[in-house]
Order: sequence, then structure tokens, then C-alpha cells
Amino acid sequence: MSPKITTELLKQLRQVMKNPKYVQEPIQAYIVPSGDAHQSEYIAPCDCRRAFISGFDGSAGTAIVTEQHAAMWTDGRYFLQAAHQMDNNWTLMKMGLKDTPTQEDWLVSVLPEGSKVGVDPFIIPADQWKRMSKVLRSAGHDLVPVKENLINTIWTDCPQRPCKPLITLDLSYTGLSWRDKIVALRSKMAERKVMWFVVTALDEVAWLFNLRGSDVEYNPVFFAYAVIGMNTIRLFIDGDRIMDPAVREHLQLDSTLEPEFKIQVMPYGSILSELQAVGAGLSPKEKVWLSDKASYALTEAIPKAYRYLTPYTPICIAKAVKNAAETEGMRRAHIKDAVALCELFNWLEKEVPKGTVTEIIAADKAEEFRSQQKDFVELSFATISSTGPNGAIIHYKPIPETNRTLSVNEIYLLDSGAQYKDGTTDVTRTMHFGTPSAYEKECFTYVLKGHIAVSAAIFPNGTKGHLLDSFARSALWDCGLDYLHGTGHGVGSFLNVHEGPCGISYKTFADEPLEAGMIVSDEPGYYEDGSFGIRIENVVLVIPAETKYNFKNRGSLTFEPLTLVPIQTKMIDVNLLTEKECNWVNEYHQKCREVVGAELERQGRHEALRWLLRETEPLARVQ
Amino acid sequence: MSPKITTELLKQLRQVMKNPKYVQEPIQAYIVPSGDAHQSEYIAPCDCRRAFISGFDGSAGTAIVTEQHAAMWTDGRYFLQAAHQMDNNWTLMKMGLKDTPTQEDWLVSVLPEGSKVGVDPFIIPADQWKRMSKVLRSAGHDLVPVKENLINTIWTDCPQRPCKPLITLDLSYTGLSWRDKIVALRSKMAERKVMWFVVTALDEVAWLFNLRGSDVEYNPVFFAYAVIGMNTIRLFIDGDRIMDPAVREHLQLDSTLEPEFKIQVMPYGSILSELQAVGAGLSPKEKVWLSDKASYALTEAIPKAYRYLTPYTPICIAKAVKNAAETEGMRRAHIKDAVALCELFNWLEKEVPKGTVTEIIAADKAEEFRSQQKDFVELSFATISSTGPNGAIIHYKPIPETNRTLSVNEIYLLDSGAQYKDGTTDVTRTMHFGTPSAYEKECFTYVLKGHIAVSAAIFPNGTKGHLLDSFARSALWDCGLDYLHGTGHGVGSFLNVHEGPCGISYKTFADEPLEAGMIVSDEPGYYEDGSFGIRIENVVLVIPAETKYNFKNRGSLTFEPLTLVPIQTKMIDVNLLTEKECNWVNEYHQKCREVVGAELERQGRHEALRWLLRETEPLARVQ
Repeated sequence: MSPKITTELLKQLRQVMKNPKYVQEPIQAYIVPSGDAHQSEYIAPCDCRRAFISGFDGSAGTAIVTEQHAAMWTDGRYFLQAAHQMDNNWTLMKMGLKDTPTQEDWLVSVLPEGSKVGVDPFIIPADQWKRMSKVLRSAGHDLVPVKENLINTIWTDCPQRPCKPLITLDLSYTGLSWRDKIVALRSKMAERKVMWFVVTALDEVAWLFNLRGSDVEYNPVFFAYAVIGMNTIRLFIDGDRIMDPAVREHLQLDSTLEPEFKIQVMPYGSILSELQAVGAGLSPKEKVWLSDKASYALTEAIPKAYRYLTPYTPICIAKAVKNAAETEGMRRAHIKDAVALCELFNWLEKEVPKGTVTEIIAADKAEEFRSQQKDFVELSFATISSTGPNGAIIHYKPIPETNRTLSVNEIYLLDSGAQYKDGTTDVTRTMHFGTPSAYEKECFTYVLKGHIAVSAAIFPNGTKGHLLDSFARSALWDCGLDYLHGTGHGVGSFLNVHEGPCGISYKTFADEPLEAGMIVSDEPGYYEDGSFGIRIENVVLVIPAETKYNFKNRGSLTFEPLTLVPIQTKMIDVNLLTEKECNWVNEYHQKCREVVGAELERQGRHEALRWLLRETEPLARVQ
Repeated sequence: MSPKITTELLKQLRQVMKNPKYVQEPIQAYIVPSGDAHQSEYIAPCDCRRAFISGFDGSAGTAIVTEQHAAMWTDGRYFLQAAHQMDNNWTLMKMGLKDTPTQEDWLVSVLPEGSKVGVDPFIIPADQWKRMSKVLRSAGHDLVPVKENLINTIWTDCPQRPCKPLITLDLSYTGLSWRDKIVALRSKMAERKVMWFVVTALDEVAWLFNLRGSDVEYNPVFFAYAVIGMNTIRLFIDGDRIMDPAVREHLQLDSTLEPEFKIQVMPYGSILSELQAVGAGLSPKEKVWLSDKASYALTEAIPKAYRYLTPYTPICIAKAVKNAAETEGMRRAHIKDAVALCELFNWLEKEVPKGTVTEIIAADKAEEFRSQQKDFVELSFATISSTGPNGAIIHYKPIPETNRTLSVNEIYLLDSGAQYKDGTTDVTRTMHFGTPSAYEKECFTYVLKGHIAVSAAIFPNGTKGHLLDSFARSALWDCGLDYLHGTGHGVGSFLNVHEGPCGISYKTFADEPLEAGMIVSDEPGYYEDGSFGIRIENVVLVIPAETKYNFKNRGSLTFEPLTLVPIQTKMIDVNLLTEKECNWVNEYHQKCREVVGAELERQGRHEALRWLLRETEPLARVQ
């Protein structure tokens, strides 16, 4: 993989930074954030501006270009990848390391006095604007909105914004109609005494209206905004997709409805002017609810005194707690996903020794098996199919230049998942197709101990996920090891594979308490640069736990694994497991046998079934 | 214990809240915070305004009085105590429970439109002012400074502010001269490009000048401020104590010194006007460093553009990392403290069965034994001597009305500590002088498992203490139990028994990373209202840990217990311990035997030595 040559592009960007056609006054720095106008994690090709200017295409990163410098901030998952993809024009800023300056501090240290720092106000979240603007102002600089996106001005072959057909989801998938969701939302609005709620996140729009799309790869969402009043519903969406009879029927666009449930469809591009009109028409005490991560542009449309900003919206919180229909859907999706992976691992076991299976072939084969399953839609993220040293690149995606052949001498890490109409999956298994070394087994077993410590944890109702993060690390810490990423993220239900407001991370202090019905991943790992990567990931459902006592009648919670794919016992050093951990593995494998075994049987996949039975033989611990 | 009758006092307070002698316009609410002008946790009698108005005298709590209501916010340690001490005029606001409103939200919910909320600007920290003021303003109210403290206007017999003699500490105790501390501070100031640093916390003034006092019970501090410039040192302190020749010699007040080390002594009350003069004389870019917890009054003395506010000051951080002299002093202090407690527990074992020992007698006896030790100064906090149901009142202090007699049928919890000239101690042991029930032993053992989990934890350099909090709870959580307080706090070196910037708590997200040389407590517990309380507390020193591997060369840390007092094995259900935990207890007890045993021998305390040897017999675990 050779880095993108950006010398010419940076020169062009520095020119437009001084061009009065685009900026009122020359700007001395331009910030290129990762996100789109909806602060999405996964973005459409037309929004990949940071990747265009720098070459680094990981899912998280912020570029800042000044007259002299070009710097990229990203986190531990992407240190290696970013270093590979960027040329010498760029300085990598490793977030999370002690000596790495924040973007604001760095700007203050490099800018000449009284500088102007520009950013696209539609791309920068309001909370980030506020933080940066404050630091810059106190150092004598100014953060200024640049209306026309400067990357777009130099990106001559920028792709079109996608506008694909919509999928409607009925009650058997969603458990709740969009009308009932609107009613619940309005009751939350009434509680907080707000008159309007602005839906800016794409997955929140999709969830609210029980619609899905495919505008963004891997995330079944579509470009839209919504503004919900106590008596009005406005949906901002482009294209003729809203003319689809199934969609019109689903949204009851042509029915006679009570006015408060009548959806007004408006052009996507009119959101700013419509919101400004809402803002201008507010009476005193009429508040407008926005996420504090909504774009600066939309936030500014509402006069400050009328804004009600929260880190998580009521939709984000409602969406996180899955109802019975969603939970059952997620269970079904994970069983189908396990069938596909049993087929894949059985196939790999036969093919890898021949030396013909590359990372890309393995990833394609995984997709092929998944696509055979009912209600399969697409993958839920780019498959991380990595062997040997590539496994240490935490969010690696095989491309022809890096594509390695799987062998019986290296650890293979597969982190993959899919979107099914009934649920979203995300699973990581680390396998060895030959004989793992004692050291590899030792590290794998520490990671497994961490995985089990979280999965089997019992904790009081009201506990935030970040309080569980250290459980995942304890066995690694005991030996001086660790991993530089969080332990888990929320998972959507046929929606984004990463969603808030809950998670398990040493970094997440703004997470909402875990509740029964929430779904998160449990994925500790261990990585040795240049050698191998290990990660064991299940998607788990928060469920009530039975405990011997019940302090203050608070009740307790624990996790039920939804992912039901064998954990390779060959990689486990059984002597490092406690009896309790050993029993956990055996009970987990017993459940895989019963549940996934029955489905393999039903689908007539006998060879994969035999593989499953062999891989789920109970561990025997030497006393 | 009967509650304080506050009807008349509240009536008087509500009158002065409208009295133009004290307020420009009538105020509709008055906030009475816990602290003094230095935001101290422990305060002098003249500063106990919240206790005076409400009756509740716990160490943490904020009272708010409106025309209709009187409400008290406090945390889980004090729910029972506050409920006992306050009359029906008061509503208890249980912080940390889900449905308890914040002070700001409550004010917004009860105040008539356009209200004024008053507070003494010297008592409220600037960060709290900012937060409250913002919320109140956005709801149409105003937070206003009330110059004269309104409690003082109705407190006719308010005691004088204390002004006791000072103690000077030489290098053998402090390891660093005040001159060297000033040099180090100025280098931190230069790093951050600030010209002035304002020392507002009493323990920071004491630490900086290697002086101690006794103006506040339990905390060896004295009322003073300091303002350190790059070339000036100003100490604001009252009374003739500065005329003491030892103090003058220590501070070199009468020596010919380089001007930048010449200390200017000024009256305590002149801090505001002097700081305003500093503020008025600043050139552009000259910043003044203050804690963001400094009082609103002092913070406002510096124009906003010139303020440099941080949650922790450089003194706070330097003070937390103990040098070799301080660490050795802390070790000595803890050995002496253990000698006193061995004497006490040996004595209790003989006396309790006679039915003549009350909680107060036991506390007094503990103080008597401690006072026999070299360099004993005073207790480090009010002894929590509690038996049976009193043990469930987390910060209980026995008074005649509640004083219970120790018996062979109840659990006894003793949380106590002392100030020695070489160090500060804080230790909790939970004992049974008869036969504990299986349930009591079970609960005790879970608490012990939590204590060991923290004490034996190995974690990477740079880890913040709050990431260890769940380790202390895991065994309790498994059975549905928990405790409603943090797990540990920083401990000063012959200074405040509670100090920042580190700690171990689910609540502490602003803590600084743990570093070798920091000292914290490890004190999980379990409490059953109306029945008993269990807590096991050691003071522990952060030390480097040897690990098998060393990920990214970060290095690892662990804890060394400084407290060396036996943990009652009679209370342990050995079958609930893992082998590792059992070994921890045995090794800990072996160290108590060796180190404290030698000191008991040296002091000729043979009966207590026999008690120690008996209490430290190794546990035998049934395999």
C-alpha cells in the first residue's frame, strides 16, 4: 500500500484558503472533519473529504491544514493504517498518547497571531465548534464558518450524493409503528417542555419512520432530516423514492389523517431555511431540542435562548432499548450469521493448508455464505480479514497491495458482520489453522478471560458500561499487556453496527446506564505490531440477572451472548482458566451446538454441522 | 439523637433575605454551601454555617432555603445521619439516586419567575457558580453574590476564627525545602506561561511553605492564602503567630535573601484587594493561575481574559506524589498506628465481654493508645466507632444520645486515624468479639475480596483510579450487593486525610492518573440499614509492578499496603476465597507480624504482641 501523494492537492487547498471567492478574509487553517452533515461514522463517497485530501480512509480522523503544516488526528485503531496511507506532507497525531496535543492546542502552537481557522459549519458538530472556538478565541484566533466546502472546490471528480430506494419495515420487525414512536417522542418533548425536535442523525430518522435505505455502504440509512413539532411532522428527503407506492402507503402520505400525524415531505436541501423559519417564529419559552452533536449550521439556525441541547436525543435512547420484536429478530439474525461462519470456518480448515486462500478470498467467501441466508441485505461493515502481522492493524481491510495468504503458520483474525432485515451482526473470531505457539495461546487465553469477565459480569441496574471496561483488561494487565481500544459499542437492530448511547470503554464517560434490552459488543483484544492480532467479539444482550440478594431492591443485570459461533479451543491454554471460566466456555459451546446445530440441520448443512460438533467439544481442565 | 428545631432560624433567615441592609433586592433563595472560603472539606466551627441553619453536621452537604422550602443535598454516606439530624422543615435530597434533582433543576422547579438566588461569593467555588448561574439564567432567574454572609447575620453566638501557633517542618519530614518547592512551582508557571499563581486551598499553602497549623480540627492547616509571582511571594496570614522566632527563621523573614525568595507577609483579610490590584496591573498576555474551585469572589478579582483556571493546581499534583522522605514518614506513622490498634483490639477483646465498653469509650481508648506514640499530634478525623446498626451509618460519630455498648453479639466497625508529625493514617477494621453469623461472614468476605482485588491489582502506568473502582465491587455485585460510596481517596502526608487529585471511585472522572508515590485508601464496604456495617480500609502506596511482559514499554503499577493491622480472620469464610486471595491475606498478615511485631517488641508491648501473633495465624483453605 503506497501513500497518496498530496503535494498538489494541498497546494490547491492553500490557494482556495486565500481565495475571496470562497472566504471573506484569508484563513490560516482549514479543518476537515471525518463526518458528513449528519455526523455519521460511516459516510457516502461524496462525503469522504478527509480521505480525499490526505489518503487516510479509516473511519475516524480529523485533518487540519495550515499554510505550513498538514496534520491528522486519529486513535489507536488507526495509527498504523494512517501512517501507511499518508505521504510526508502529513504529520500523524496519535490521540490517546500522553504527548499528543489536542487540535486546539496544536493550532494555538503553530498559528501566527490573530489567525482565522475555517471549517464547514454543516460538517462540524456544535459541541466541537464550541470547544474549539473557545480555546482559539482565548488565544487570540477566530474559528470561522466557511459556507462553501473548500475540499469540494478542488475535488473535481467528486461523486454524486446517493439517493437509493427505501425499504419499509412492518411491525413484525419493528415492534412499534412510526405513529407510536412519534407519540412516545412527543411525550418526551412534553416532559422537557420543548415544542420542536430536530432529527439530524440518519439512523434516528430511519428508526423513527421504520424505513431503511442504502445511501451509505453498510449502514441501511438514507439522507434525510426530520423536524417533529407537537402538531406537525416534516420529513426532508430528496428524490422520487418517496413516490414509491409502498413507501407512500407505509407513511400514509395519501390517507386522510389527523393533522398531527400528517407527514409533510420537503426537499433535503431546505432544512436550513425551514429551521431558520421555525427559529424566527418561536414565542418565549418555546424550546427546540437538538443533539449537541448536530451541526453548527443547524444549531445556529435556532436562537441560543431557544435551544435545548442534550448529548443523547430521546430517539437515541429509545432506539437503544430493543423491544421483543427487535430482540427476537436479532436472535434470528445471529443464528443465521453463525450458520454462515460455521460453513466458512469448515471451508477454511480444508482450503488454507493448500495455500490458495488470501484475506480477500476469505472475506468474499464469508460474504457468499452470509448472502445465502434469509433476509440478508448487505455487510454491516468492511470485513476485517487479516492474517499474521495484518491482524495487528486493528481496523484493517484487505486490499490487493496488502492481501496476504492464509497459512497454517499464522493467526487469522476475522471481524465481520451483516445486515439482515431482522437484525445486525458483528462477530470476531481468531483462529489458527496449524499449531499455535505457547505464547499465542497464552495471549489468546488472557483475551478470552477478559471477554468472559465482561460477558459473565453481574452488575446493578443503573450501572454505566464504562464501569465494566477494566474487567476486560484485568487478565492482560496482570501480565503487563493491554489493548488500545474500547471494549464494546452499542449495536443497532438492522441499523448502524455502532450506535450510542451505551458502550463499554475507558473513554466513554458520557454513556447512558445499561438497561435490559440494550445490545452491545464485548470485544477485548491483544495486538503485537508486526506479528499478530487477537480479538474475541460477541454481540451481547443486556438481561436481568438473578442474584442471591437484592441490595436496595435495585435489581441486577448481566449479558446474554447473541453471537453463537465457537471460540477455537485449540487457541486456549486451559490451565490459565479458572473453573468458572472453563464452565462458561463449555456452556457457551453447548448453546452453540443446540441452537446453531438445529439450524444447520434444518438447512441440511451436514458438513458444517460436523465441524460445529467437533469445535464445541467440552474443555477438560486439569485440576 | 433528636433533630435541631430550625423553624425560628429559617424565619429569621427568610427575613434577612428581604432586608435591604444585606441585599440590594430581595432574594427568593439562599444557598448555604458546606465549605469555607478555601473550599475545605473539614471546616472551623465559625464556618459551620450549613450545620447551624439545618442541624446536619456531616462533612458534605448543601442547603438551599427559599421562601417556601428548605432542602439539603448530601450523598449516600449521610442519608441516615441527615435524616436524623434535621427537623420537618427540611427536605433531604439524596444525591446519586436517579430521581433526585440537581440543585439547579430543583430551584428552577420551585422558584417563581424571575427570581434572584443569593450566595456568599467567598464560599461558592467558581466552577459551581458558573454551572448554577448558567442553568438559572437560562430559566430566567439570576444567581447573585450577597457580600455579607446571611447566616452570620442571624448567628449571634458565632465563634471566632481560630488563629493558632504554627509548626515548622524540616527537611527530614518534607524532603524538599519551601524554596525548592517555589522554584518547581515557578517552572510549572513558566511552562504554562502564567505570571501569577494564587494558592487558595489551606493544605496547599501548608505544603508549599512546609508549615502546619491547627486552625481546623483534624487537618493540620492554618488560615492563609498565598500569591506567588515569578519574582514575589506574598503570604496572607493573621495573628502574631508569624512573630514566632522559629517560624521567622524557617521562612527566613529576617534574612537577606534574593528578592524573588523574600516572603511578604500581609493580613489575611487583604487578599481580595491585593488580588484586585494584581488584576488591575496586568499587561496583555499576563495570566493568573487559579484553581477552578477557588471562590467566585477571588476568581472575579482577575478579569476573565487574564484567568488561567485548572481543576487541579500544580501544587495539588506535586503534593500527591510523595517523595522518599514523605513515604518513609508515612511508613513509620503507619507502624506506630498499628501498634496502637493492636493494643486497642487486645484491650477490647478482654473488655467487651464485660459489657462496659461503649462506642465513645472505645474511641477514646483508641486515641489514648495513639497519643502514646512518638510525634503524635491529633486525630486525622472524628473516629467512627460504631457497633450493630450504628455501623450502617457510613460516617457515624458516636455522641451520648446514640452511644451503644459493644457486645459479643454485634459487629463493631472502627474507622479511625491520626496525624503524626511524620504522616497521616486512616484505617478501618470490622471485628466481632463473639461468634459472627454465617451471613455476616459471607458479607465480610465479599468486602475483603473487593479490598484484595484493588490492593493486588496490576495496571498500566497512566491509569486513572476510577478505572479500578469496579474491581472492589465485583464480588458484591455477583450476589446482588453493593455500597453507596467511593472506594478510595488520596491521603496527605501529615496533611488532610482526604486530598486530590487521585482517588478510586465510580464518580471521579476528573481524577489524575495514578503515579508511583501517590497514596490512596482502599476501603470497600457493605451496609445493612438497621443491622450492621462492614468496611475494610488500608492506606496503600502506588508502586511500580514487575510484570511478565511490558506492552509498549508503558510499565505497570500496583499497590503496597502502608496500613499493617490484622484483618480479623474469624470474620472470613475461607471457602469463598480463591487460593490467590487466601495467599494475599497470609502474606499481608506475615508482613504485619514481622514489621509491627518488631515494633511491639521494641516498645515492650508483649501482650499486644501475643494478640498480633494469634490474629495473624495463616488461613488454611480447604481444597
